[in-house]
This record gives sequence, structure tokens and C-alpha cells, in this order.
Amino acid sequence: MRKRKIESSVAEKRKTALTSLENFGTKLYDQMEEGLFPWIKMPSRSIENIFYSQEVRQYILGDKAVRRSSRNIRHIRPLTQLVWAARFAHELAQSRKTSTLRDVYYSAQAYDMSFKNQPESNNIITDLETVAGLSREDFNVFPEERSAIFGDLTIGYTVPGYEGRQLNLASHPDGMMIGPALTSAEFLKTSAKMVIAIEKGGLFTRFIEEQVYRKFNALLVLTAGQSPRATRHFIRRLNGELGLPVHIFTDGDPWGMHIAMVIISGSANAAHLRELTTPDATWSGMWATDIVNYKLPSDPLTSIDIKRLHELQRDPRYRGKLWQREVKKFLKIRKKSEQEAFSRYGLTYIVDKYLPAKLKEAAS
Amino acid sequence: MRKRKIESSVAEKRKTALTSLENFGTKLYDQMEEGLFPWIKMPSRSIENIFYSQEVRQYILGDKAVRRSSRNIRHIRPLTQLVWAARFAHELAQSRKTSTLRDVYYSAQAYDMSFKNQPESNNIITDLETVAGLSREDFNVFPEERSAIFGDLTIGYTVPGYEGRQLNLASHPDGMMIGPALTSAEFLKTSAKMVIAIEKGGLFTRFIEEQVYRKFNALLVLTAGQSPRATRHFIRRLNGELGLPVHIFTDGDPWGMHIAMVIISGSANAAHLRELTTPDATWSGMWATDIVNYKLPSDPLTSIDIKRLHELQRDPRYRGKLWQREVKKFLKIRKKSEQEAFSRYGLTYIVDKYLPAKLKEAAS
Repeated sequence: MRKRKIESSVAEKRKTALTSLENFGTKLYDQMEEGLFPWIKMPSRSIENIFYSQEVRQYILGDKAVRRSSRNIRHIRPLTQLVWAARFAHELAQSRKTSTLRDVYYSAQAYDMSFKNQPESNNIITDLETVAGLSREDFNVFPEERSAIFGDLTIGYTVPGYEGRQLNLASHPDGMMIGPALTSAEFLKTSAKMVIAIEKGGLFTRFIEEQVYRKFNALLVLTAGQSPRATRHFIRRLNGELGLPVHIFTDGDPWGMHIAMVIISGSANAAHLRELTTPDATWSGMWATDIVNYKLPSDPLTSIDIKRLHELQRDPRYRGKLWQREVKKFLKIRKKSEQEAFSRYGLTYIVDKYLPAKLKEAAS
Repeated sequence: MRKRKIESSVAEKRKTALTSLENFGTKLYDQMEEGLFPWIKMPSRSIENIFYSQEVRQYILGDKAVRRSSRNIRHIRPLTQLVWAARFAHELAQSRKTSTLRDVYYSAQAYDMSFKNQPESNNIITDLETVAGLSREDFNVFPEERSAIFGDLTIGYTVPGYEGRQLNLASHPDGMMIGPALTSAEFLKTSAKMVIAIEKGGLFTRFIEEQVYRKFNALLVLTAGQSPRATRHFIRRLNGELGLPVHIFTDGDPWGMHIAMVIISGSANAAHLRELTTPDATWSGMWATDIVNYKLPSDPLTSIDIKRLHELQRDPRYRGKLWQREVKKFLKIRKKSEQEAFSRYGLTYIVDKYLPAKLKEAAS
């Protein structure tokens, strides 16, 4: 295994998160010391202020800002909630404990903070992300869902109890879960030349069994459907820190296509964040074109599929040539197909024939 | 870490699966050599032939049998499909490749076998389970879904490429996926004294962070909702081969209760199988009683929740005292609560107070 020099970003990231929360608090204290009602200003996340940027290739927030001041009686509640959320996040990040959005909602009650319901507390956490310019995972608020990784990458843990310990991610051939420990690990050593992200568990296992990681020097990531944010951030790190190209393989339908798109260009909901996209990742299949070219078994598109395709056609993220061509092709053939459909040619066809052909295509 | 003598069952199991498929084939050949139209007989899986057995504490099949003969023109199709499925399963098990139900459906086309649709091919695989008395995982047909495990258990792999390699399942603090490699691994060494199965990812991570595995000498299993069959089988092995008691923690609602019940007593769909239940496992919470005793934040039961509770009340698996009491209690308080609700008392309350109290209760 050859060594790569890999820049560490994990320790810095954690420091940045803590500092940004502390600055937020200091600012409020300073205002009060000056005799002002504390107030904050942050970019508006309303729909009129969300734009697609060709430059950074994701949704971004425009110039509109919202101001929340403790002078305004209607603002007191959300401002107080935000201050509490910042305090709670700081406590989490400092004590290196993780939690979930659900935990945040219930934890508030321990502090006599009142949230009407889960959406209200989720929204305050998103406010906090917007103010700090960091994602909630940086404050140790993690999603419930877990995805997985397998391949030759040696990581160094930074979580309490595991500091200094290393693990090679090819040690367990069912895959390692991507959770807080992996997300915050340093990348130490790898022989990998690419990342292959896969939508489904069955295919992830097939790729491991058929030694795709060895034959193609690939790290395999299981997205398990729409990938959790922590996984999207992790893929971005594999791409950015290790300089590895990312190929995404999904089912051949509008939903699979969109799983790839969200890894590549993110979502409108996360327009206030910059760390969840991998703009240079490619959707390598399964395309509508593949369904035709490989004469795959297929199912007819449903009316919901077709409605979704029309939405995607108008979506600014789908302006690229490949995306427009494939959306049109789906609408033309009115068919969809699953990755397992390749088993029609034998279980290993997808690895022996399809995968090399698609990787060659992407390289040209 | 103290050593335990653990009986190996994996290698034998694989041999049993292959032998049982070979016997099935030999029988058909013998019939033909005797000049008979090949036929088979297997237990009926129709609803009138499914009974709950207090003795083995799961659903079982009764005495009714179905006969399929190639002499009957209506039987030729399912019998041929079954023979193909047996051949395919034998190929999988022998070459140690895994697949999914979805793969089986599409693979048939490579052999010019025709299945009308996915349910038809799923049903034939269930026929094969019934004939062989083994579950499809024994023939290397695995579910899509993956759950996870964490804790001090050293396993020895038997899958190709990893034979002879060992791994301690506490090496990765996000958890290891439970897939074909882990399911077929030998248990070598453990210091664990119990298994704790948990419904949700967030809590699984909390238990790892709070070192439940160390404080309680526990192996932690994440079921990720309703546990996949491979995980149920795995829990059974932890209980049977390692002699570890199993405690299940779920949300406090009819759906969480049933996640626990399916691990303990299985499902009617799997009445033809014996290896998917852990009758001695206990549902340790969250009970309706806990919602009251711990004064937890809760939501009102929906009409769907209530309908489900009435169904469970009549379900033979729910005859036990604890189950009847809790179903009644849910119906009385008309409330449900999630595991995260304990965060109301601080993030670690569930580990510091609730868990020890429930384990003590279970021991008494």
C-alpha cells in the first residue's frame, strides 16, 4: 500500500465549530454590555432567497437577511431557543457526545425550554447552522440513519476512548457503519484510486464478494437509499482530501438518479451549507440509455415516476447535458430498471462487464 | 478477556444446506429411474395449517401437506421452478456467492426460467425453505437490509478471501454491519455477559459512547427498526452458542413492542422455519408502564396505533402476562413514547438510570 500525504481537517473542524459558537455567545454578551437588546442577523432561508449557483454548483442563499431582536416581543421566543441550541451544541461538541435531532427536541425539556413540536426544534437547529455556517454534524447532532463503507483506507480515530487507534476499513467484509466515529476520523493511508457509491445493500455485498475494491482499487460506499448527510459529507472528504474520483451507481429510475444528484449538488434545504456536496462526482448509472443498450428487464414507469421526471426536467441542478438527455430518455422509453436486473446475464456480469465499461466511459 | 469454549455450527450448517439440496435432487432422479413422474411432498403453508405452539414458543406448520407432481399439468410450472431454485441455491452455496431475492428473480431469466413477477419467485424460495427445512440465508440468499453490532466478541471469518482472519467487533465504534460475512463467522472469544438489542441508530451510538458495552459487559445489536432475518438468526446464535441473555429495547408503542416480539417468537410467515427465534429473549422496554413511571414526554396514540393494539391483544404470541398487561396499559393511557424521550432528563439518564433499573428488574 503506498502512502499518501493527507491533510488533516478533523481537529481544525472541531475547533472551528467551538469557536464559532463561542463567538456567537460573545457577540450577544457584548451587545448587552453596551446596553443594547441582543439581536442577530442571518441569511434568510425563505424560498425567494434560494438560488442555484452554477459557480459552486449547488443551491445557495441570496442577499436577503433576517434580523431577530430581543426588543421585538415576537422574536424573543425563537431567539431564546437559538441561544439555548447554541449552548447545547457547545456542550455536545466540547464533551464530545453525539445526539440526534430527536434528542435535541427532548433535551430542551431538561432546560425548561419549550418547543411546540419536532419541526420547531429542527428549524432552530437549521437556524444555528445558518448563523454558524456549519452543519449540525459539526456540533455532533447526527442523523438516525447509517450507511457503510468498505475498502483499503486506514483511519485514525479521534473519538474519546479510541484516540490514536487505527483501523483499516477492509477489515470487515460486510462493511463498517459510517457514524460519528468514522466521520470524525483522520484518513491515514490508502491504495484506493476511486470511490464507488452504491445505492443498495445487495449490490454492495456483491461488489465486495467480487473484489471490486481490489480489481479497481476502489473504496465502496453503501448509501442505503438516499444517503444521510454525514455520508454525503464523508464522500466529499474522500473526494477532497484523498483526491479520489467518485462514481455513483443507482437504480435506473428518477429516484436513483436523484440519489446521485443529491450527493453531487446537494439539496435546496441545505442551501445555507457548503460541505455536503461533491460537485465533481459522476452519476455512472444506471442510465435510461443503459436499460436500452443492455436490453435489461424493466418495469413500466408509474404516473408518480413520470410526474417526478417532469419536476427534475425543470430543476436547475438538472441543466447538464447528461441529466437532460437521461430524463428525456426515461420519458421516451417509459421504463425503469433496477441494478439487480443485470443478474439476467449472471450474477457477476455487472462487475465483469458493466462496471468496467462505465468506468472507461467516464474516463473518456 | 476470558475465553469461552464455543461450539462451531457454521461449517456444519453449510454442509447441511448442500446435503439437503443434493438429497432433494437425488430423490427426483431416483423417481425418474424407477419410471415415476417426479413428485414432492411438503408441509402446507396455507393459513389453516399455521398454529402457534406454546411448546416451541413460535408459529409452526400443522400436519397438512401438499403434493406436487409432474404428472399434473398444473404442477409442472411450480415444480420446475422449485427444481431450478434448488439448483441455483446449490450453485450459490457451493461457490459461496451471496444474492438477494431480487437477484434470484432476475437470475432466473439467464436460465430461461420464467417467473411472472417478484412475489412468484419469492414464493418458490419459500417453498424451497419448506422442503429443505432451512432458511434462505443458509443458501446464501440474503436480505437487502443491514443492521449492526458492536462489542467485545472476536469472530473468525469463513467467507472466501477472509478465511482464518479474525476481528474483534469492538474495533469500530460506529458498529460493524451484519451481513453474510458476520452471519457465517465463528464466535471465538468474548467477555460479554449479555446482548442488548436496540431499535434505533441514535441510541445505539449513545450506548457505545456511554460505554454500555464495558459497564454492563454487553454486546450491542442495532436492529434498525424491524430486524432483518439474518439479524434475528444472529441474535439467536449469540443467545444459543454463547449462552448470553438477550434484552431488547424499543420505542414505547405497539410497533416497538412488535419488533421485540418478532425477535423473540418470529412471524407467521416463517412458521416453516426454526432458526429465526430467540424465545428466551426479553422485551425490557420501553413499556407503557415506563411511560407512566418515568413521567416521559409522550404523544397520543393514533387510531392506527389503537387498531394495532387490538390486533396484538388477540395474537397468540401475546398471551404472556407481561404482553397482555402492557397492551392493556397502552390502551388505557392512550399514549406512546420514543426512546429519545429520556433525554428529557439529560442525554445519559437512559444509560445511568433507566438501563440498570430495567436489567435489575429482568434479573429478579
